[in-house]
Formats: sequence, structure tokens, C-alpha cells
Amino acid sequence: MEKKHVGQHISHKFNEEIEDIRNKVLIMGGLVEQQTIDAVEAVVTGNIELAENVVQSDKTVNALEQEIDEDCMLIIAKRQPAAFDLRLLIGISKTITELERTGDQATRIAEMAFKLEDNNRDLSDYRELKHLSELVRHILHDALDAFARLDVENSVEILTRDKEIDQEYVSVFRQLTLSMMEDSRNIKRALNIMSVIRSLERIGDHACNVCDYVIYAVKGADVRHMPEDEIKKTVLGT
Amino acid sequence: MEKKHVGQHISHKFNEEIEDIRNKVLIMGGLVEQQTIDAVEAVVTGNIELAENVVQSDKTVNALEQEIDEDCMLIIAKRQPAAFDLRLLIGISKTITELERTGDQATRIAEMAFKLEDNNRDLSDYRELKHLSELVRHILHDALDAFARLDVENSVEILTRDKEIDQEYVSVFRQLTLSMMEDSRNIKRALNIMSVIRSLERIGDHACNVCDYVIYAVKGADVRHMPEDEIKKTVLGT
Repeated sequence: MEKKHVGQHISHKFNEEIEDIRNKVLIMGGLVEQQTIDAVEAVVTGNIELAENVVQSDKTVNALEQEIDEDCMLIIAKRQPAAFDLRLLIGISKTITELERTGDQATRIAEMAFKLEDNNRDLSDYRELKHLSELVRHILHDALDAFARLDVENSVEILTRDKEIDQEYVSVFRQLTLSMMEDSRNIKRALNIMSVIRSLERIGDHACNVCDYVIYAVKGADVRHMPEDEIKKTVLGT
Repeated sequence: MEKKHVGQHISHKFNEEIEDIRNKVLIMGGLVEQQTIDAVEAVVTGNIELAENVVQSDKTVNALEQEIDEDCMLIIAKRQPAAFDLRLLIGISKTITELERTGDQATRIAEMAFKLEDNNRDLSDYRELKHLSELVRHILHDALDAFARLDVENSVEILTRDKEIDQEYVSVFRQLTLSMMEDSRNIKRALNIMSVIRSLERIGDHACNVCDYVIYAVKGADVRHMPEDEIKKTVLGT
């Protein structure tokens, strides 16, 4: 899809500039994906070094956000793009805000690893995180993939998966609330894990927002506040 | 400040278009400010009708976000602005995302009013919310004011106030944790209030992000990840 659109430009240089920006977004996306995986791993295994890496990476993520935003501005000012190219550049500028905030949430999770290390580690391996973190890891990976391929169909499919994440979040939250009520010694642990699952749920939201921007760039349709069936009808005509 | 910049345009029509967009942003800002005030009021007083109003307003806020974004795209495509005008339009496009998410957080707070109504209401008047909600209400109001006037100095001052909000959040969170540990019958109430204070804290962040975009539009400086003293040096030269 992308090749066709981008290939329509007369200016070869312009194509290269847009490709450069897209590659930087993919590098940034790869970084926040790794941050997310490592942050959960750090919490589950108590690997403090890994948690420190996540916190350190955030500086690179922030710097990339600023660099890509500047690139987008320069190219808009210089090339005066319209239609698909302009939507893509604006979509990229909004996408990187989502990625930067994904990095922030991963950093919060990593910081929780330090906190859990201070308390006595329990032997549960934080099993409550297992399913939710898998769901979130996949949605983030697939959203970045949809961005890389400008894949509208997959973007629409990904949007439908947010419900599952929300349901799992509510289920784990309830479980943790019960454990608090059963024994007040569980309260601190449960509050810490609640903070982690909230960050995971937010990362799922950011991934969905990226898909919104892919659909917007390719189709010109703003589906941000549309119900699922309306999105399918508008975007896929089904 | 704004008058000088905008006045430099040759096209009177272009000025009008930009003013129209800015006015819409101010209307949207006024709406989310009212949502925030009403949502807290609904929680504190148990006024369910007010909570319903907040939830209802969210549709208008969402529609405004889409309308303003479309306006920005059209004007960029048609007028091919550069320098200040382009930064302002991109800044507006990012600002309204912050405002829309402020509206989402206010809606979450309002939804908590329904939940608290379901439980037995307590007689505490949710005093834990008092100071934090005042701080957040003021920072949001002042950020919108800074946007209206494109006031860089006030934007910088507002950014320094986020620390105070974070500190108050941590203090209330600790207080609520203690109340849970003292008596497990407090757990549900405390979890609900924790959700409210988290939303308030997030609204404070969104307000600060708006100030970042004001500084970016007027000064061309990207201060998003700068420490406070560096912002002052870069933006105010002090």
C-alpha cells in the first residue's frame, strides 16, 4: 500500500526523507517495545539491572521523539505536502507522542521493580501479570508492524483487541482487591501490582491510538471515537 | 505576542482562519475545564445528574477534537504556512489531544461518582480530594489562559507547579494506603479515591503538556524533556 502512495512522488529526495522519518519511528517503536518487555521481566524476576536499562533507554526515546518531530516540521515547511503525505506526517507526529508515553509507562513499571525489590520479594512470580503482559506485548508489536506496513486491515483488527485487555485488567484488579481484603499484609504488594497493570493497560491504549493514525494516514478517515462496527464499515466497507 | 506574529501575515483571510481554530480550541478547553470541576463536585456531593452531564459532554469534546484537527489539516494543505504559523498549527493539533484526554480523565472521575453512589456514601465529604483538586483545577485554568494569550512566561511558571501536584498526590496516596491497613472495610473506598486522584494527577500532566506546546509555538523551543532550570534559561534567558 505504502509503496504505491510514496511512489507517486516526483521528487525522489522527498521519498527518501519520508522513508528516513519512518525508519526513525520504527527504531523508536522497537525501543519502547523492548522497554515494555524488559520492564515486565524486571518486575517478575527482580532483575534490577534490567530495570535500570529500561530507565536509561527513556532518554534515547525522548531524544528520538524530539528529533522526529523536528524532521516532520522541516519536511512540511520545505515540501508543502498535501493529501496522503501530509496526513502521514501529521500521523507520525502524533504516533511518536503515543510511543513516548508508552516508554514512560514502561519506565514506571521498571521503577516498580526497584520498589518490589525493597519489600521482600514474594514467591508468586507475579503470575497475575502473565496473561495481561502477553496481550499488551502482542498488541504493541502488532501495532508497530501495522505502522511499518501501513496496514489498514490489521489496524482495524488490532483495535478490536483492546476490549480483551480491558477485561483482563478488570479481572486482575478484582483478584488483587480480594487478596487485600483477605489479608491486610497483601495490601502493599497488591497496590504495587495494580500500578503495573494500569501501566500495561495504558500501553494497550497507546498501541490502539497508533492504529487510529495508520488508518487516518492511509484512508483519511478519523476513526478515533467510532464504535467497532462503524470502523469496519467506514474503513473496510464490511 | 500573538498579535504581532499573526499581524505579519499578508492574508487577512488566513488570520481569520487561524483565529477561528484558536477560538474552537478555547471552547474545547472551557468544556474540559468545566468537566473537571463538575466531575470532582459530583464525587464529593454525590450529585449523579452532574456526573451524567460530564459523561454526556465527552461527545462534544471528542467531536471538537476531530473538527479542529480537520481544520488544521486543511489550513496547512491550503496555506502552506511556515515558521510560527506552522508551529502554532502543529502545536494546536497536539494540544487538542491533551484536552481530549483531559476530558477522558474527567469522565473517569464522573463514572466513579456512580460507583461511590452504589456503595454507601460516607460522611467524609472526600476531604482527601480537596487540596489536590484545587491545584489541578488552577493549573488547567492557567494553562488554557496561557494558550489563549500565547503567554510564554506564564507557561514556564505553570510547568514548575507540576511538582506540587505530584507531591500532593503521593501524600494522599499514602494516607489512603494507611487507612486500608488500619481497617479492611476502608479498602474499596480508598481504591475508588485512588482512581480519582490518579486522574487528577494526569490532568495536571496534560495541562503542563499544553504549556510545552505554547512555548514551542512562540519560541520554537522544544522543552518537553528539559529540567526546570534549563527551561528557564532557554526560554526566558534567566
